[in-house]
Amino acid sequence: MAQKPSIPRGTRDFSPVEMVRRNYIFDTIRSVFQRYGYQPIETPAMENIETLMGKYGEEGDRLIFKITPRGDRLLDILDEISAIWDKKENLPDLINKKMMASGEALRYDLTVPFARYVVQHQSEITFPFKRYQIQPVWRADKPQKGRYREFYQCDADVIGSDSLLNEIELTQMIDEVFGKLGVSVTIKINNRKILSGIAEVIGEKDRIVDITVAIDKLDKIGEEKVMEELLAKGVSKPAVDKLKPLFRLQGTNQEKLNSIANLLSGSETGLKGINELEYVFSALSHISHFTSHISLDITLARGLNYYTGAIFEVKANDVQIGSICGGGRYDDLTGIFGLPNVSGVGISFGIDRIFDVMTELNLFDKIDYTSQTTKLLFAHFGEKERDFCIPLAAKARAAGINTEIYPDVVKKISKQFDYANKKQIPYVAVVGSDEMQSGVLGLKNMGTGEQKKMKIEEIIHLLK
Amino acid sequence: MAQKPSIPRGTRDFSPVEMVRRNYIFDTIRSVFQRYGYQPIETPAMENIETLMGKYGEEGDRLIFKITPRGDRLLDILDEISAIWDKKENLPDLINKKMMASGEALRYDLTVPFARYVVQHQSEITFPFKRYQIQPVWRADKPQKGRYREFYQCDADVIGSDSLLNEIELTQMIDEVFGKLGVSVTIKINNRKILSGIAEVIGEKDRIVDITVAIDKLDKIGEEKVMEELLAKGVSKPAVDKLKPLFRLQGTNQEKLNSIANLLSGSETGLKGINELEYVFSALSHISHFTSHISLDITLARGLNYYTGAIFEVKANDVQIGSICGGGRYDDLTGIFGLPNVSGVGISFGIDRIFDVMTELNLFDKIDYTSQTTKLLFAHFGEKERDFCIPLAAKARAAGINTEIYPDVVKKISKQFDYANKKQIPYVAVVGSDEMQSGVLGLKNMGTGEQKKMKIEEIIHLLK
Repeated sequence: MAQKPSIPRGTRDFSPVEMVRRNYIFDTIRSVFQRYGYQPIETPAMENIETLMGKYGEEGDRLIFKITPRGDRLLDILDEISAIWDKKENLPDLINKKMMASGEALRYDLTVPFARYVVQHQSEITFPFKRYQIQPVWRADKPQKGRYREFYQCDADVIGSDSLLNEIELTQMIDEVFGKLGVSVTIKINNRKILSGIAEVIGEKDRIVDITVAIDKLDKIGEEKVMEELLAKGVSKPAVDKLKPLFRLQGTNQEKLNSIANLLSGSETGLKGINELEYVFSALSHISHFTSHISLDITLARGLNYYTGAIFEVKANDVQIGSICGGGRYDDLTGIFGLPNVSGVGISFGIDRIFDVMTELNLFDKIDYTSQTTKLLFAHFGEKERDFCIPLAAKARAAGINTEIYPDVVKKISKQFDYANKKQIPYVAVVGSDEMQSGVLGLKNMGTGEQKKMKIEEIIHLLK
Repeated sequence: MAQKPSIPRGTRDFSPVEMVRRNYIFDTIRSVFQRYGYQPIETPAMENIETLMGKYGEEGDRLIFKITPRGDRLLDILDEISAIWDKKENLPDLINKKMMASGEALRYDLTVPFARYVVQHQSEITFPFKRYQIQPVWRADKPQKGRYREFYQCDADVIGSDSLLNEIELTQMIDEVFGKLGVSVTIKINNRKILSGIAEVIGEKDRIVDITVAIDKLDKIGEEKVMEELLAKGVSKPAVDKLKPLFRLQGTNQEKLNSIANLLSGSETGLKGINELEYVFSALSHISHFTSHISLDITLARGLNYYTGAIFEVKANDVQIGSICGGGRYDDLTGIFGLPNVSGVGISFGIDRIFDVMTELNLFDKIDYTSQTTKLLFAHFGEKERDFCIPLAAKARAAGINTEIYPDVVKKISKQFDYANKKQIPYVAVVGSDEMQSGVLGLKNMGTGEQKKMKIEEIIHLLK
C-alpha cells in the first residue's frame, strides 16, 4: 500500500523558488558577516542533554527535542525502570524522567552550543573571537502561524572583547544587511545599565525586572496602565512619579539622552549606560552611507536577565510584524561551562520574518536570481538536434552561463517553452535541422517575446 | 559546578578554518549544480517515522535516530504499555516497540525525503525535475575513523526523464566539480542492464545478486577466489567458465564494450546496456574540455537492488580512499509513496572524503579564501586612533574588501599583528598619531613583511 506522504507538524519543505529567495537572504547576511571579519562555525544538531538542560528555563527544558536512547543504553534504562516500578511509583513519570536524564537532544538555539564550543575549543581560538553561525534549531513548541518546530537562526557574536567598537560595527552590519535587502528599518537601541540606573534612582534597585517588564508594555497599554501595574507590584508612589519623565521622552536621541542623564545623575551605572550609547551614536553619525533610522528606546528590554550592556532590536518600517533582528551584550555566557568573565555581544537575524517582510514588499520580484537559476535553455526538434546542443551548452557553461538542454525528445516544442516559463528561464535557443546546418540559432527572449537569429558565440556574448 | 563540555560521540564541531574549506567545496559543487539547471530544495530534519521505516533494510531501520515522544502522546503510549505490562510481557521490548512505532525520526539520507517531496508536491513541480539538496543526515552507526553519526550529503537528481542526456550531463558535472577542486579522478561507469545480461547469458538470470556481489570483489580477492565463490553459491561450472573473458577485459572502453557485446549477443537487455554506454561515451568524447578519465568497469554494482541503468563511481587518482562520488539511474523511487513509474538518475558527492583527499594533496593551501575571510586589519595605538579607523574601514568595506578594526585598545601593537597572523589576514594597516595627522597609513604585507606608506584610497585600490 502506498503511504500518503506528509511531514511532521511545524516543519516545512522548501521549494526551489523559496530556496532561491531564502538563499538570497542568507547569502546577503553571510557576505556582511564576512565583510566585518566574522568567521563561520558549525556545531552538531545533537548536543548532550546536560549541555542544554537548565539553560532555557523550565519552559525551555520542556520544549527541547530529545533523541530516544537505543540499544544497550535503552535496555539499561528500562531495566532500572522496571526494578523501580515494582515499588509502585508512577510509571509514565518515571520513564519520562529516566529517558530524559542523559543522552542526546536537538539544538534549541545557537547561543548555548556557541558557549559550549568556545569553552571546549578555547585553546585553539583566537580572541577576540568573531563568529557567525547559520543553522537550524528545533523547539517542540505548539506550531502556529509564523512559529515552526524547525527554523534557521542566523547569529553573529564577538566574544572576549568589551570594546564598544563591536556594538558600533554590529549596528553597521544590521544597516548594511537591510540596506542590501532593500528593507527600510528602525534600529532600536537601549542599554541595560540605563534600566539599572532607573531602578536605582527610584530606590527600587532590586525590582529592576518588575519595572522593566512594566515599562516594556508602554507602547501597548499606555502610561496610565503601566503606572497602575507598577503600584500593584508594590513600587512606591513617589518612585512611580519619578519615572513619569521617562514616558514622555522627546526629540533626537541626544536630547533624549540629556533628559535621562538629568534623571540618572545620582546613578553611576546609569550614567555609564548613557555614555556608552552617546559613544555609539556619535561614531555611527560619522559613517556617511549609514541609512537606517536609529532610535533610543528605553522601553526595550529583550532578554533582560541575560543582557548587561547594549540591547538591540530591529523593526521594519513599512510592514507590521515583530522584530526582525535583535541582540545585545552579555557578560558571562561561558561561565556555566567553566570559562568565567568573558564578555560578548551579538545579534541574530530572524530569517522567516525577513522573508515575510520581503514578500509583503514585493522585493523578491526585483531580484535577478540568474546566478542561481537557469539563464538559457536549448529547445530542439529531435534527438539529433538535441545532441547537437551538447557541445554548444558546454561552451555556454564554460562562459559561466547557467544552461540547460531540454533532456527529452518531445514532439511539441511548446512543451519545452512551457518548461522554460515554469522555471522562469529568460532565454530559449531553438535548434532544428536548419539551425544545425547554418549554426545560426533562434534565440527567444521569454520576457519580451522577441526572437533573433544568432550564433552561439553571439548568444554567449549577450548572456554572459 | 561548571560542566566539562563535550559533544555526542560521532558528531563534530567545525572550526572557522574547516568551515571555510568545506564551504569552498560546497560552493564549488553548488555552482556546478546550478550551471546545469539543478534547483535547490530542503526538507525537514525530522520526517514521520513511517516515511523512513522499511526503506533502508532491517539494519537501516535500526540505525534511524528517533525523537522521544512527548507530552500527551508519551503519556498515551506509557498508559498503554503499563496496561499491557500487567500481563507480564517483556517491558523493555514493549516500550521500545511502542515508542518507535510512530512519531518523528531524523533524516537518514536525502533520497527517501526527496521521493516523499516529489510525491507530496507533484502538482507544483515542473517535470523533468532537476533538484539538488545539500543537508546533513543522521545515522546511529558505531562511530569510527571517517564514519560519523552526523554528516552532510550532497545530491543532484533528475526525476521524470529517461533521457540519457541526463547521464551525460551528470558525468560532465562530476568532471567539472573535480576539475574546479583540482582533484584528478577516474569516473567508473557501468550499467545494470549489462549485469542483467551477464546473468542471463550464463543461464543464471535469477542469481544476478550473487553473481554481482562476487564480481564486485574482483579487485580485492582476484579472479580465482571470485570463481570459487560463485561455485560455492551454486552457479554451475560452465556458467562460471563463460564469465572468464569478463575478468580479462582489455583496451579502450570501446574495445571492452565490443568484447562484452560478443559475450552478450544473446541478451537483448545486455545489448541495450551496451548501446546506452556507447551513446554516453560518444557524447562525452565530443566535449573538448572534459578532462577526467572515464573507465568502463563491469564489476561496479553499488546499490544493485536500486539501480536499473547507469551506475557511476568516482575514485581519486592520487589518494588511496573509497569512492568520493557515486550514483546511477533508478526506475521507481516514488512508487512507495504512490507515484509509480517515474524514472530518475542522480549522483551524490562524499564531502568528508573529498575534504580528506584535498587535505592530503595540500590543495587547500593554494586557494585564495579572502572572499570569505578578512583581507585587511586596522591596527592602532590607542582609542583615538581606533576611532579614526571607523570611517576608513567603512570605505574599504564599501569597496568590497573584508575588513576588521582590532576592537580593543591594547598597549602592544604586536598583539594585533599576532591576531592578524592567527586569522591569516594578509594585510595590516597601522594607525598612530602621525598617520592620523597625515592620512598616510603604514600598510604591512604579512606574507612578505614588506611595509609601505599609503593613503586609504591607494590601499583600497591595491586590495580590491
